[in-house]
Parts: sequence; C-alpha cells; structure tokens
Amino acid sequence: MKVAEPTIERLVQYHRLLETLREEGHRVVSSQQIGEMLGFKASQVRKDLSYFGEIGKRGVGYHVGRLCDHIVEILSSPRVWRIALAGVGNMGAALLSNTAFRSSKMRFEALFDADPEKIGREISGVYCWNYTEMPTVMAEKKIEVLILAVPARAAQSCVDLAISSGMLRGVLAFTQGTLVVPGDILVVRVDILAELEKLLFFLKQPEAVLE
Amino acid sequence: MKVAEPTIERLVQYHRLLETLREEGHRVVSSQQIGEMLGFKASQVRKDLSYFGEIGKRGVGYHVGRLCDHIVEILSSPRVWRIALAGVGNMGAALLSNTAFRSSKMRFEALFDADPEKIGREISGVYCWNYTEMPTVMAEKKIEVLILAVPARAAQSCVDLAISSGMLRGVLAFTQGTLVVPGDILVVRVDILAELEKLLFFLKQPEAVLE
Repeated sequence: MKVAEPTIERLVQYHRLLETLREEGHRVVSSQQIGEMLGFKASQVRKDLSYFGEIGKRGVGYHVGRLCDHIVEILSSPRVWRIALAGVGNMGAALLSNTAFRSSKMRFEALFDADPEKIGREISGVYCWNYTEMPTVMAEKKIEVLILAVPARAAQSCVDLAISSGMLRGVLAFTQGTLVVPGDILVVRVDILAELEKLLFFLKQPEAVLE
Repeated sequence: MKVAEPTIERLVQYHRLLETLREEGHRVVSSQQIGEMLGFKASQVRKDLSYFGEIGKRGVGYHVGRLCDHIVEILSSPRVWRIALAGVGNMGAALLSNTAFRSSKMRFEALFDADPEKIGREISGVYCWNYTEMPTVMAEKKIEVLILAVPARAAQSCVDLAISSGMLRGVLAFTQGTLVVPGDILVVRVDILAELEKLLFFLKQPEAVLE
C-alpha cells in the first residue's frame, strides 16, 4: 500500500486522539469532530480514513475502538527497532528523558558523543560510547536507526560513520544543513528553526494558508 | 499572496541552501541541482520558484545571489518578533542555547517555568518568571509568540495563561496532545515522536512514498 508522508503524520495524530477518546469512554466520533479537534477539514479526515477502508456511518460517525485498533495495526511495527542516539546535549537528553520514546516499538541501544565526561557512562540507563566507535558498535548491536542530535558541523561525518557500520537504514535528523546519504537510507528531518520561521511568516501575512 | 504551508517549509530550505552556495562562490544553480541537494523533484522546485516570479534560464539555471535575495525578502520580517519560552527543561534549554534562534527576526523576551530553582534567575541571558505571571509579563512586554516546551499535562493551562495576556498571536508547540485555542491564534506543532513514528513506518514498508 502506498502511503504519502503527510497522510502518515495525520494517521499518527488520529491514533493519539482516538486513544484519548477511548480512555475517556467515547464510543463514536464523527469526521467533523476529529477534524475540529486536530485542525483538519472533515473531508480530509474522511478521505484519509476511507483510504484505509474505514467508512463512517452517516449521521453517526466512526466506532472509536475499532478505528483505533485499525490505525494501531497500520502503524504497528514488525519488531522492536534498535536505535542509537548521536549527541547527548540538551536536545539528546530531552529525547532520552521523554518516556514516550521508550515504547514497545523502539529501544535505545547506544549513545554516542565526543565529550569525555559522557563517554563510558550510562545516561538515562543507556551506555555512551565514543562516536568514533559508531561503525563497530552499530554493527555489533545491529542498530538500524540513528537519531542525530549533534552540532551541524559534526552531522555529516557522524552519519558517514553510521553508514560505514553497514546496518544503517534510517536517520531522524535534528541538524540543519544538507546531509548526503545513499539513496536507500531514509532521512526524516525535524527542523525546529524552519517551523518557527514558518510560524513567523504566517503571522506576518495572515492571508497565507496554514493547512 | 496565498502561500501554503509546505511551500514555506521548502522556501526556508531553498534559502539555507542558497546562502551556502553563495558563500561557496557558486553563481548559478539549476532546479535539478537544487532538487538533488534537498531531496525534491526538479519540477517541484521550478513550480515553487515560478510562483514567486523566478524563472530559471533554460540550460543555465537560476542566479544564486538574486534568487537568494528574493527569497530573503519573501521570508523577511517586518519587525523583531518578541518571543516567550514556557518550560526551561532540556528541550527549552536546547532552543535557548542554539545561536540560530538569536536572529534579527526574533528575540527571547521572557522565560517561564514552575521550578523555584529557575524562577528569578537569568538563563542564557533571559529572565525566568513564575509561569503564573504569564498574563501580566506577556502583556507588559508585548510578547506575541510563545514557544511551548512544557510537559503535556501543563500545556493547555499554560496556553490559556498566555491567551489571557491579550497579546498572543502564535504558538510553536513541542507538546503532544490537543491544544484548544481561539481561531485567530496560529499553532505550529513540532511533534518529534510523530516524526520518528513516520520514519519507522517508512522503514517497515519501503514501497510507501516519502516525499
């Protein structure tokens, strides 16, 4: 099944909302209500969900529990992803201490840093290695996913080390600037400054379209 | 001029790339090259830029300096935005210490936290207030933009305090969960866990489309 990136982002949000609605004891929800709570158009919600075979009942809506289970299944993971975090600064520490990242889908297997104060210690229960050991440690531990939270100037060399492990398949990158990777490695960027610039742009010209 | 959200995200990326190319002394660049470096289709690049009146010369491309200046102008800010940061934990500290956030477009005017260790002190040169003082401090300092980096359970009440200042126009939110705000307040979310979930989804089914 082909799924475009923006759809997946919305699917993750539907999932969170439906979990909350289920916990609160709601049994049905309309596309209108979902749209209002998440800031999407109701027609977008219907389109997204019908793509996955979910058709709401006219005048009633969707069955919260069933829809939630269905989305969980779509988003489910065939295994626990083994993750490394490169860069244990403020941003890295924020991710490590966020319990939401300790899910059944993923496990932090190794940390990497250049700071001698951090190397050789456990941080939030995960061992921190010298970043120069990325190729061997990532290969030994079969780590396929790298979260990159190093300074911009270190980003490319860090990714290159991870690539040379032969295991790397995906990168979540917090660094600005271009990363060059082979075509079979996926990169998803979280560009916080770009998001802030976007907000300021829309504040200066309110007639622009924030979708 | 109506500009959709994904276009602005790409515009911010074009800008960064062009600044780098200019610094490196490049004079022209093709839509093909821009696309390859940023991971977009060349046709998308041409479409985006032509929307702003920039037409590349066939077989030559765009003039780096002129294109860069044009995009700077589109993204430019009519003033320095006055920003408050609520929540000076790891995530908040990461933003405060990132020099990229100290630009001519924005200035951190106040920090807010609930931690007595932080309240009444300057952190990275910005004074930290008790979050209960948000309504008065934001009104006095005319702060229109709030960066929200508080725990999920505190997010809504924090936004409500900011709204009651009467000054709030936009929020950059790092918190998961739904935020309810009046229709005239813009909310841009940075949902890191959702980005990671997206990456894992695309890793499990490589036939999906990462655009």
